[in-house]
Amino acid sequence: MSSFAKMQQSNLNTALFGLSLDRNSGLPLHAQLTHVLREMLRADPAAAGERLPPSRALAEELSVSRMTVTTAYDQLIAEGYLSTRPGGGTYVAEDLPHLAPPTPRKASRAAQGAPPPAWLPFQPGLPDQALFPRRLWARHLERAWRTPDPTLLDRPDPFGWPPLRLAIRDHLAAWRGLDCAPEQVMITGGAWDGFDLIARSAIAPGGLIATEDPGWATMGHVLASSGLNEHPVRIDAEGLDPVHLPTDTRAVIITPSRHFPTGAAMPLSRRLTLLDWARAHDALIVEDDYDSEFRYRGQPLPALAGLDGLQRVIYMGSFSKLLSPALRIGYIVLPERLVGPMRAAIDATGPRVSMVPQPALASFMASGEFATHLRRMRRHYAKRQRHLLNALTGLEEYLRLQPDPSGMHLCAGLGPALVPAGDRAISERAKAVGLTLRALSSHARLPDPPQGVLLGYAGFDEPTLSAAAEKLRALLTSLP
Amino acid sequence: MSSFAKMQQSNLNTALFGLSLDRNSGLPLHAQLTHVLREMLRADPAAAGERLPPSRALAEELSVSRMTVTTAYDQLIAEGYLSTRPGGGTYVAEDLPHLAPPTPRKASRAAQGAPPPAWLPFQPGLPDQALFPRRLWARHLERAWRTPDPTLLDRPDPFGWPPLRLAIRDHLAAWRGLDCAPEQVMITGGAWDGFDLIARSAIAPGGLIATEDPGWATMGHVLASSGLNEHPVRIDAEGLDPVHLPTDTRAVIITPSRHFPTGAAMPLSRRLTLLDWARAHDALIVEDDYDSEFRYRGQPLPALAGLDGLQRVIYMGSFSKLLSPALRIGYIVLPERLVGPMRAAIDATGPRVSMVPQPALASFMASGEFATHLRRMRRHYAKRQRHLLNALTGLEEYLRLQPDPSGMHLCAGLGPALVPAGDRAISERAKAVGLTLRALSSHARLPDPPQGVLLGYAGFDEPTLSAAAEKLRALLTSLP
Repeated sequence: MSSFAKMQQSNLNTALFGLSLDRNSGLPLHAQLTHVLREMLRADPAAAGERLPPSRALAEELSVSRMTVTTAYDQLIAEGYLSTRPGGGTYVAEDLPHLAPPTPRKASRAAQGAPPPAWLPFQPGLPDQALFPRRLWARHLERAWRTPDPTLLDRPDPFGWPPLRLAIRDHLAAWRGLDCAPEQVMITGGAWDGFDLIARSAIAPGGLIATEDPGWATMGHVLASSGLNEHPVRIDAEGLDPVHLPTDTRAVIITPSRHFPTGAAMPLSRRLTLLDWARAHDALIVEDDYDSEFRYRGQPLPALAGLDGLQRVIYMGSFSKLLSPALRIGYIVLPERLVGPMRAAIDATGPRVSMVPQPALASFMASGEFATHLRRMRRHYAKRQRHLLNALTGLEEYLRLQPDPSGMHLCAGLGPALVPAGDRAISERAKAVGLTLRALSSHARLPDPPQGVLLGYAGFDEPTLSAAAEKLRALLTSLP
Repeated sequence: MSSFAKMQQSNLNTALFGLSLDRNSGLPLHAQLTHVLREMLRADPAAAGERLPPSRALAEELSVSRMTVTTAYDQLIAEGYLSTRPGGGTYVAEDLPHLAPPTPRKASRAAQGAPPPAWLPFQPGLPDQALFPRRLWARHLERAWRTPDPTLLDRPDPFGWPPLRLAIRDHLAAWRGLDCAPEQVMITGGAWDGFDLIARSAIAPGGLIATEDPGWATMGHVLASSGLNEHPVRIDAEGLDPVHLPTDTRAVIITPSRHFPTGAAMPLSRRLTLLDWARAHDALIVEDDYDSEFRYRGQPLPALAGLDGLQRVIYMGSFSKLLSPALRIGYIVLPERLVGPMRAAIDATGPRVSMVPQPALASFMASGEFATHLRRMRRHYAKRQRHLLNALTGLEEYLRLQPDPSGMHLCAGLGPALVPAGDRAISERAKAVGLTLRALSSHARLPDPPQGVLLGYAGFDEPTLSAAAEKLRALLTSLP
């Protein structure tokens, strides 16, 4: 009587003895056996408690080594599908609540949660990615990682790679009149990450965070996601006036160099009033300096943080607009007294920013190529602004446009022909013809916001701007 | 009478007329003048309201063009330091609360908040960075960015670059027996980011998050920083038992393939009990699968998420241990029904992970070089584990060591000679001789934790392990 006949007690054993392993599949025989046996067990709840054929018998029947079978059995014992008993022998585990395989979920995989659509003119805040310095960038990346500095692969400093922080310090001294130590510079994963870090480490819980209204539309989500209460303050021609700040304001987030989105610069008198207010109320100011490097006439106003001597102001910058949003690298510059608390906060959860781009960005900056790139972009963007203004002449009835000494977009008030419709209606109509014409009022949370539209020009070349301007002209002049 | 004498009305004017600009400095003369005049105004509060010399007179005195002076005046008018009056003339602004310069803060820059020290043996969880595939990595980076795929620089998908998500899907199918769609894979900035994203989008506020005790020591901070309440559950030999879960548990975070830090694998029966429990209580399971690829005997246990058919289990993985913590790239695999809510959550604040490493990692994986690297590391780590065990033979009185079929560290119980001192005392003593010997009890938050020490071996070559083992032997055998 063959071992096959002796063991033929069950469906499971029948199936086991009947299976054939594929010697040419490239997969080891024990792995094949493990897989097939596991599938059998999952498909057959009735097998619970059943005894398996002895390894020697099964090996003989399948013409494999006994080791092949014991390896498979051991694996499935480790996984809990099989068990051994004191008297010897291998059994299908008894105590499995069920062994049915999960229903495969391959249907309806496609559409849910689609990625965001591509950018269209006049999306604001976009650098032109066609002008991204790809060759230089690739070279800096390759050099940095072919023979990486040992500190890149050693325990990372959660504040970021020190040479990059030094390069940023030098950039700020040269471009923004801001004097700080590299130890005060912390690399972040961009604006959200910067605000989140500040919210978690530098701002006492409770109290209000004052923001500009209109302002950065995403700010409310960013603050709420960090558990902070936003208190929007309607700005006047000079920006946010501390007269309107509640006394329990813990921090004020402002864009003094170039208000987002209107483009207004905060004059010195208001800056000093704000600093006085912050001192008197023991509050922080967060200076979001998102694109001051793109100034076409005059010099950029020095950073508010410099005026303050980095006492009460946290300075924030980003490479998203200066180089590419794909980098997802920004930075904050902290008052000295906040460096320790921030270290404690970030040490508790660990570093958050990839090291991969950091050495490339550091050498790109230290080589002077970054400054050259900025000057080149500045020339392009100045030209594009003029081009767009020329392409939109004769629309005074619809848009109140004027040259802006800085920035990457124009903020146009509504002319008499558009006032009745309102900026959101115009924005909707523009969307329908493939233009992103953000409504100024959509950047506000307070009632009766100012009306206008944002015309981002930096990210689009002249032919694209001409075509978009013609589309916009046709849209505006055809409005009922 | 010279214009100099006529204008000599004040300290400010005296200083202005007396200054000399440097024609060889490379800095434009108007910029020099702006800078010096700004500094004068900030240093001299008494100058408020004073009239400045006419631009023509100052230009003559300084031997510069009149344009140089008017440019500097205009800049300082824009900044609010100067103003014009209806009758003509340029004046120092009156309405400045103060003009004193901020106290320079250059002292005490150094020591506060020092970066963390370098890694020492037996730091667990570290891949060997000397074996980081730097040449391949540099080549993939260079290729990806020299002629970047347009989607890299277009609007980023906050879920990550699609080809990388596809490569991860293929890796999971081949190595972890997990079948999912690339749309379910989301790139994260590592473990903290992954937990933070899950906490903000997938877990209802309130309720408890159950974790393993002992477990990942950082978890408490990670959950607290996302506003979640951790509920540690003491594990038994099979891991976390749902019997001990409070009914308001919203999610359970576990390491079923290889418990951190003890190394125990959760058997199938317990896995199924947990899945049943999650179904009955409408709770989530987060499977943190941090190093299952490093299995030296048998196959890695299939992921719990696969057993569940990705219904109630979020799967988490990371490249920190497989490749390098410098990448700061991990991923989560979401049940289909959570993809939409996660998209909504991430769209509100924007993408968080740099695009720079993503195409290099995608091509490194798709080329098969990543799998080769993993197999190479697996051979190294298996050898290192054997090497360490050999180097520590004869210490049975002190450490209960045994071979581990997987992982990057050994978890040793305390032998009779060490029980009286306890694991934290041993850990402190080891620190003093330059060894990182983490106490098992320091990974626990509940009272009466198990005692032991963690011996990370993966990150250190054989000579380093030998030297560290000798140091440890000397330390242990010299204990009183």
